Amino acid sequence: MGPPIGAAALYAVRAGGKRVRPLLTVAAFRAAGGDGDAVYPVAAAVELVHTYSLLHDDLPCMDDDPLRRGLPTAHRVYGERVALASGAALQHLAFLCLADSADLDPGVAGRLPAMVRRLATGAGPEGMVGGQLLDLLAEGTAPDAAGLEAIHRAKTAALLSAACALGGEAAGAEHEIVDALVDFGTYLGLAFQIVDDLLDVTGDPDHTGKTPGADAARAKATYPAVHGLEGAREQAETAAGVARAALEPLMDRPGAAVLLETLDFVVDRIH
Amino acid sequence: MGPPIGAAALYAVRAGGKRVRPLLTVAAFRAAGGDGDAVYPVAAAVELVHTYSLLHDDLPCMDDDPLRRGLPTAHRVYGERVALASGAALQHLAFLCLADSADLDPGVAGRLPAMVRRLATGAGPEGMVGGQLLDLLAEGTAPDAAGLEAIHRAKTAALLSAACALGGEAAGAEHEIVDALVDFGTYLGLAFQIVDDLLDVTGDPDHTGKTPGADAARAKATYPAVHGLEGAREQAETAAGVARAALEPLMDRPGAAVLLETLDFVVDRIH
Repeated sequence: MGPPIGAAALYAVRAGGKRVRPLLTVAAFRAAGGDGDAVYPVAAAVELVHTYSLLHDDLPCMDDDPLRRGLPTAHRVYGERVALASGAALQHLAFLCLADSADLDPGVAGRLPAMVRRLATGAGPEGMVGGQLLDLLAEGTAPDAAGLEAIHRAKTAALLSAACALGGEAAGAEHEIVDALVDFGTYLGLAFQIVDDLLDVTGDPDHTGKTPGADAARAKATYPAVHGLEGAREQAETAAGVARAALEPLMDRPGAAVLLETLDFVVDRIH
Repeated sequence: MGPPIGAAALYAVRAGGKRVRPLLTVAAFRAAGGDGDAVYPVAAAVELVHTYSLLHDDLPCMDDDPLRRGLPTAHRVYGERVALASGAALQHLAFLCLADSADLDPGVAGRLPAMVRRLATGAGPEGMVGGQLLDLLAEGTAPDAAGLEAIHRAKTAALLSAACALGGEAAGAEHEIVDALVDFGTYLGLAFQIVDDLLDVTGDPDHTGKTPGADAARAKATYPAVHGLEGAREQAETAAGVARAALEPLMDRPGAAVLLETLDFVVDRIH
């Protein structure tokens, strides 16, 4: 990578974060019977897409956020042009990672069309990037439960679901196992975003690394705004229950425990 | 696609343009012995990446261009947020197109890792998006021949070269044929960008659909600025000659004539 793009991309990647998405990809791969190292570039691909989404979402024309993961956002450090280009570069690198994975394992190579489709769909206009935009465009409008769930499904659940599905695809799993992982990831994703909404109201910025109360200040549609704090907590628990049930067909597999622990970690952040 | 993203993306795609990149992909596919329809989604993928690059390059924080292909730029019509998200969406759709192509033809599926790599590398930080940024960062600095060629190779030649290589890969061609297409595309790309630089000085805006004199107004590093008008014309002809020579191993193939005609079309725009 050219120096400014590489520096800004590394800055964003190294800022940390919970690494929930790649953890899910690796755990789903193991739970689906996958073996070996070919899953690691796939897991990296998902994290790179997530990181690019943060870079672009923080830009002045989007959320205009000064702080991310407790550090100044990339565009504050490197400028807007470099942050924009670095985000695009991370997208391309993510797909390169999928190709790397296919080169490591002929079994993965046979599932590459499906994997490209999972990543592109989870990240694309029906998924993450479409949801981010809907979220911004909904600012200041009267929140509505169905519309809010649609935004959360696209903005957050689609990529978390793809993270799980990609692990299953890379493992060469049968379709019903991949479908179970899709459902698990979708409802874990909904729980994740509801908890994020709650933490914006109740969280400690030293812990979350984000500007507190940012959602309310922007009149964002959130679960606490629509359902109240207690209602939002219940919705998170309900979504987590659906996710847990979806894992039934994989329950005796080695990675399933990690998937469940990740789900618990996501939901426990509100306690 | 969600309505605002879909509308802005379609607006940008339908604005027209020369469609040189997909034409090259299809012609390279035929010249490399490819048969059938699996090349068309590949050609579309390249055009979608090109269109996204225009959307992002025109944004206020980048070139801040009001006019593209004779029409108001997408961010002027749909706003900056929608244009940014639509560009990202087009990137994801491009990779979906590659997966579609693999589904159409098992031969293409076997080359999908290489195809993903060609598209991501041509468009990524060492290619198009890196070159666009270097180009912007070089504005107002004293132009230098070697640095300028490096920018043009990344910004323009990398994706045109990938367009040609992707046709070869989709055709299942042997490596030396793909290498010849890479070289052809690279030097056609250099000629293309030099001609673009020249047209910014000498072109008729009714013809080019662009704001005339925009490069000089921004103190961009261009071939006419570094080599003079006549010197730039010579450089374009030289690059075209190298491109022509690179096609030698394909000269008796059916699509080779279209590749050469496209090269002539690119260079003839300066006469």
